Order: sequence, then C-alpha cells, then structure tokens
Amino acid sequence: MSRRRVLALSGGVGGAKLARGLAAALDPEALLVVCNTGDDFEHLGLHVSPDVDSVLYALADVNDAERGWGRRDESWNFLETLRQLRPDEAWFQLGDRDLATHVLRTARLRRGDTLSTVTDELRRGLGVACTVAPMSDDLISTVVETDEGDLPFQEYFVRRRCEPAFRGMRLEGIEGAWPAPLFSQWLEHPDLGAVVICPSNPYVSVDPILAVPGALHRIAKSRRRGVPVVAVSPIVGGEALKGPAAKMLRELGHQASALAVARHYTERDLLDGFVLDRADAALEGAVAELGVRVLVTDTVMRSADDSQRLARELLATFASSY
Amino acid sequence: MSRRRVLALSGGVGGAKLARGLAAALDPEALLVVCNTGDDFEHLGLHVSPDVDSVLYALADVNDAERGWGRRDESWNFLETLRQLRPDEAWFQLGDRDLATHVLRTARLRRGDTLSTVTDELRRGLGVACTVAPMSDDLISTVVETDEGDLPFQEYFVRRRCEPAFRGMRLEGIEGAWPAPLFSQWLEHPDLGAVVICPSNPYVSVDPILAVPGALHRIAKSRRRGVPVVAVSPIVGGEALKGPAAKMLRELGHQASALAVARHYTERDLLDGFVLDRADAALEGAVAELGVRVLVTDTVMRSADDSQRLARELLATFASSY
Repeated sequence: MSRRRVLALSGGVGGAKLARGLAAALDPEALLVVCNTGDDFEHLGLHVSPDVDSVLYALADVNDAERGWGRRDESWNFLETLRQLRPDEAWFQLGDRDLATHVLRTARLRRGDTLSTVTDELRRGLGVACTVAPMSDDLISTVVETDEGDLPFQEYFVRRRCEPAFRGMRLEGIEGAWPAPLFSQWLEHPDLGAVVICPSNPYVSVDPILAVPGALHRIAKSRRRGVPVVAVSPIVGGEALKGPAAKMLRELGHQASALAVARHYTERDLLDGFVLDRADAALEGAVAELGVRVLVTDTVMRSADDSQRLARELLATFASSY
Repeated sequence: MSRRRVLALSGGVGGAKLARGLAAALDPEALLVVCNTGDDFEHLGLHVSPDVDSVLYALADVNDAERGWGRRDESWNFLETLRQLRPDEAWFQLGDRDLATHVLRTARLRRGDTLSTVTDELRRGLGVACTVAPMSDDLISTVVETDEGDLPFQEYFVRRRCEPAFRGMRLEGIEGAWPAPLFSQWLEHPDLGAVVICPSNPYVSVDPILAVPGALHRIAKSRRRGVPVVAVSPIVGGEALKGPAAKMLRELGHQASALAVARHYTERDLLDGFVLDRADAALEGAVAELGVRVLVTDTVMRSADDSQRLARELLATFASSY
C-alpha cells in the first residue's frame, strides 16, 4: 500500500507558494493544506482569515504575485470610500475583490457554518481542486508579546509593521480548541505519506498550528509509523523572504539563520527532513548534526514552475512513494 | 417667531432629488429628512438601507444621476468576484464604493449603535450638512402582498422586478416600533414650519413612514397648530418617473394619476398642499376639490438646479416663513 497523502502546514504567502507547488505535483485528493488561523481577526465586523485566503488565492491562481499578497486585478474603491467616511478604520487593506471572500465568510459564520465548511465553500467557488482547511474551527487569536506590551497579531503585523521587538507570543483560545475535522482525520489516516511544514514563519505561522491540542501528539504518532515531517526553511541567506521571521529570531537572541529554524523544530523532536537553500549550503552539516536529513536546493519560488519543481524534489527526496 | 424647520419624508431616489433641493434652499439646521426603512434588508449579513443611502448619496452629491441609483464612479469588482464564488447570491447590486456604507453600518449596528446613530455618522462622513434620520430605529420590514403571494420587499422589487401584481402591503415589526428620536422631536418642535412628502411611492415609501406608531397623530397635531403638510406627486402624466407606483395604482383598481395620489393622502385627512406637474395641469380642479391647495409647476428634477427651484417654489407657496 502506498502512502500518497501529503499534509501541508502553511502560514500565508510564503507557505502558499509551496502549497501551490504541492498541488501541481500531487493528485487533488492527495493533498490537504492546513492553514494557520491565529492571525484571523475581525475588522469592521468582517471575519478575515489572511492565511487561509493567501493559500486559496495562490491555489486558485488569482493571487497577486507582484504585490505579494491579496488578489490580482484588484481595485480599492471600497477602501478609498471607507477612508473618506472613517479614515481611522481604513488601516487594513481590503481590496474590492478580496471583500467578496470576507463578506461571504462572515455571512456563513454568522448563520452557524464552521470555518471548515466556509473554507470548503470558498475553495470550491474558487475552483481549487485540492483540500484546504483551517487548523481549527475554534477562534484562536495570536497575541504578540513585544517590548511595548501585548499586541493583537494584526496590530503588530499591519498597523505597527512589526516594529516593536518580539519577545514571544501566546494563543488566546487555544486551551479549549479542537483541530479542524480534516486536520485530525488526515493526521491519523493510514495513507498519510508526509507532513510538510511550508516555508512560513516558525513562530507566528507554524507554531499556532502545532499548538492545536493533540496536533503534536498525533504528528509524533505518525512519525513512529514512518511518516516523515519535512520543513522548508523560510530563512534564506540570513533573511526572511517575506515577513518578520528573521527579525523575530534576532530579537529572541538567535542568529537569523535556517539553522535556527531547523533547531526550533528539532528541539521539539519534530523533524525528519529539512530543505536548505543553496545560499545556505554551508549550514548543511550543522543541520544534519541535529539528526535531520537535509536537501539543499533552490528554495526561492519566483514562479509556479519554481514551486512545482521544489515540491517534486522535496517529495522525491523525503517521501518514498513519490 | 418664525417657523423655519422643514421635515421631509422621503423614500429613495425620487424623494432624494427633492430632499437635495430642500437642502440647497434651507439652512442645514432647518432641514430633517426622514427616510423610509421598510425596504431595509439583510443581504450576505450586511444591513442595507436603500432609501437612507439614496438620500445620503444625493445630499452628498455622490449619487449616480445617470444610472439613477447608487454611487457615481462606482466599480463592481466585489460583485463580479462574488458572482464567481456564489452566482445565486449576487442578485443584489452592491457596488464597491457603496459597500463601504453597508459594511460600516453593519459593524456599528452589531456593536449596538442605533440606526439613527449610524445614519448620523455616515452623514457626517459624507459631508452632508443637514440632518437625516431613519423613520425608526426598530426593524420594520415591508412585505408586499401580490397575486403570487407575499414577498419581502427586495424580492419583489429587485429579484422579481415588480412583476407580480400588487395587492397591498404590510409592515412586519411595526406594532412595537418607535419613531426615531429626531423624527418625533421634529414633529413636536415649535419651530416646525412644514412637513413635505417627497415625490416617493405612496404605498411602499411614504406609507411606512406614516405607519410608524404616533406619526399620523403627531402630524395631525402639527396641522392643528398651522403646520402645512405638502406632497409632491410622484406620478406625472399617468406614469411614475421611477419605480412601480403607477403600476401599483392600476393593480389596486385606481387610475394611475396624480389625482389618485392626492386622494390617497386626503383620505386620511393628511394633506394641505399638493404639487402637480404642468403635464397634469388639467387635474388642478379635481385635486382642489379634495380641499387641498395646488401648485402647478415643473416637478421633473433632471438637475440639482431643478431640485432647488422646485423646493424654493414649494416653500414659498405653502410655508409662509420662506
């Protein structure tokens, strides 16, 4: 029996690029992308799920690759008009097309649908073939602990542009939370062939997914039956390709390096494989010393082709059925 | 003491044109426009107040005069994207700029603000100087009774394009409703100089306002102390300038004429003055026989100048302080 299913854990834009590559490399029914929802928030009464949306838009090929987030062919007339009405509430960039997602999601949640159900409806509406799920249907909110005090994630990330120094984070609502049904089902599925940690911020994107009660335990169980966990470094040449990961590592007293990311996961005995960029080839030995198999290749995904090549290489290296 | 305040009762687009003329003719603090909210509805979880918005947009001079409704320089990317996601839920035309109003209103209502408070916030945001209020802060829903059964107003008006024959209407929620604070305050204000019924549909735009408990009684009290009630006919030459008023009159067995509109109001002993279009000059005698003073003039408002001239003429004729 071949284990063909791949469970990818993803944050926003960076992770979404690899998710897209995996979707191109795998049959649709063989891929589940589980997205961080710790940075979900309510803005103007709308439930916004930035990471879910980044993944959906990338998988649907409607994402704006140049801007790096949101939808292609976007317009901003809603935001411009809102700014005239209430300049103080127009700080979060909501595009006109993007709004369709938020309005529909909010309407569904208010009538009682779960975030999983809404995500699946959006996925189908966008024509995405593989499965996408939130990490949990429960509300979990990332609070960033900074030298200026605690900040809700989007306050830190968007409004303050990650300027305050990162001291740590906590997840409000995590105690009573359950994993989304698909997340727990796939983690226990006999056909599971690999868990892929996408190149997302280890602190504020991946850790929330791993913190969902039962997730780490089930990943450990999968590893015992031979399912590898493979992470792709979001740090290349000492810098994050996008977002504050490198800055956060430094502010916590680490070197901003792919090695620190690998260590972040191996400290929890979580990792079997690690993908390093060629720019970090010098770190290969140090990562291997952590007890991890290393693939050194080009990890910077500038195109859909890059994504697919990286996904295929990763699967061929670490997931024997591919 | 001069009675300078004018209280205008308005439905959507047609009424909004006269409201705009009144705003140009009066000091800002001398005008309150009370809008029908019977056609308010929730769409995709958003609270939409079509008549309030038509009035606000006209007063702010951001309305689209050519299309006849909504905002100028509008774009439709939200709707286009929603149609791709859920074609069945994209039947109501929500423009990208217009959405700012609905999203802000909905957010405010959900946090507990009244419709009056939100309307005032929107008014200020749009730079409208005179006061605008909903008829009530309570939810009142117009149900249109047709030969095909009962239909929520927007189902009848937008989805069914007013095709089913009109048999009558009723207002769900009207029993326990209170008038909005400004509506009742102005009706009882010693400076009230005139009540103007704008050229709006008598059945589905004006009647809901008059049906708010206490409204008719207070208008009668004002009339007893000499405050005239003046209506402008929404029917010109036997046809409604916009909307289904003429069709409704015919379906109820009336002639579709300005006379039938005047009769609709005099039957409730409500009217002191009536404004007829020159096209209907032949009806002047018949309307006067109802015991109403008649002004015959040009009532079709094609421009802001038309609106202002009509408003000034109306005030000069019926409200002695102007």
